[in-house]
Amino acid sequence: MSSVPESPTPFVRLSREVVVENPWHRYCMDRYTQRDGSAGTYHYVDIAGSAATIPLFSDGTVVLVEGFRYLLDCWLLEFPIGGMQAGESALSVAQRELEEEAGLVACDWHSIGSFAPYKGVSNEICHYFVARDLEWTAQRLEPSEDIRVHRMPLGDARRRLLDARPADGQSLAGLLFLDRWLACESGGALDCELH
Amino acid sequence: MSSVPESPTPFVRLSREVVVENPWHRYCMDRYTQRDGSAGTYHYVDIAGSAATIPLFSDGTVVLVEGFRYLLDCWLLEFPIGGMQAGESALSVAQRELEEEAGLVACDWHSIGSFAPYKGVSNEICHYFVARDLEWTAQRLEPSEDIRVHRMPLGDARRRLLDARPADGQSLAGLLFLDRWLACESGGALDCELH
Repeated sequence: MSSVPESPTPFVRLSREVVVENPWHRYCMDRYTQRDGSAGTYHYVDIAGSAATIPLFSDGTVVLVEGFRYLLDCWLLEFPIGGMQAGESALSVAQRELEEEAGLVACDWHSIGSFAPYKGVSNEICHYFVARDLEWTAQRLEPSEDIRVHRMPLGDARRRLLDARPADGQSLAGLLFLDRWLACESGGALDCELH
Repeated sequence: MSSVPESPTPFVRLSREVVVENPWHRYCMDRYTQRDGSAGTYHYVDIAGSAATIPLFSDGTVVLVEGFRYLLDCWLLEFPIGGMQAGESALSVAQRELEEEAGLVACDWHSIGSFAPYKGVSNEICHYFVARDLEWTAQRLEPSEDIRVHRMPLGDARRRLLDARPADGQSLAGLLFLDRWLACESGGALDCELH
């Protein structure tokens, strides 16, 4: 957001400590001061980012994956998504996750938006793509993974994602980016890439 | 999600350790085994939940708040949101945050949906409300807080939230819940509460 460009950054970081480092993220503690002189600490998840994909067939169907989410203690229907490691591009991660989780490869990729899923506790930015010209291949899952693949009309996917309890915020964001992109596509633009 | 009710929980938790506890969340490490016998650890944010509100005036305008988000290093336009403490109701937190951050009190509240903003790293469920019959009062901010309040037509809010770089995933989810609720309201239902 650049709508308040005149305002200086209200925080000055004094130090950063990595409390826990694991293969997926770092949990950090920063010490900072604010403009009014008050000091504080901030605990947060530091992560390289993530990439998510909406696989869109020419007949208007999309693919959702369904896996068990340990932290929610339920099966969750979602668009394929995966975490980036430092140095990886969002597109390459999106392509790898789409193949591993959904068993799909695609020739036509478009970046359709990016968002912060959890602004208060994580610095993650999630990059969204739509993938077209899709072909089925084999899923590549870990032995312990169980991910089911569901193909359905976009309207059905929208209803199922929105009506799930809980809904998956990261998939909901993708629906809005897709709607914006499709509106732009239908407007006749040759290259509708927004980011 | 209950679409795979026949499947047993694929994870069995063996232990839980609280690595860090602060006023906002706990950072935990669980040890678990999976059905195939493989063992693992899971680091995550444990939090009581959150509550967010879309303040909707009868003229079709809504209110967004804009604050500096330390982890994103930018000013972010968003719907008022706040974390719950154990034992608090989502509605009471939504009402408190709306008054503190936006300087608004409301007589008419409806629950419009709930979602998991960050399923892979946090067990947080965010509960969304729409608030109507609004009246302005004073913001109640901490001395170090600087939160600007913006009232605008819903269509403008939608565009600004979606076009922000990065967009705020938690606010995007609210837009979809609001659309569903408004479609239901316009259908003539007396009580359109969905949850």
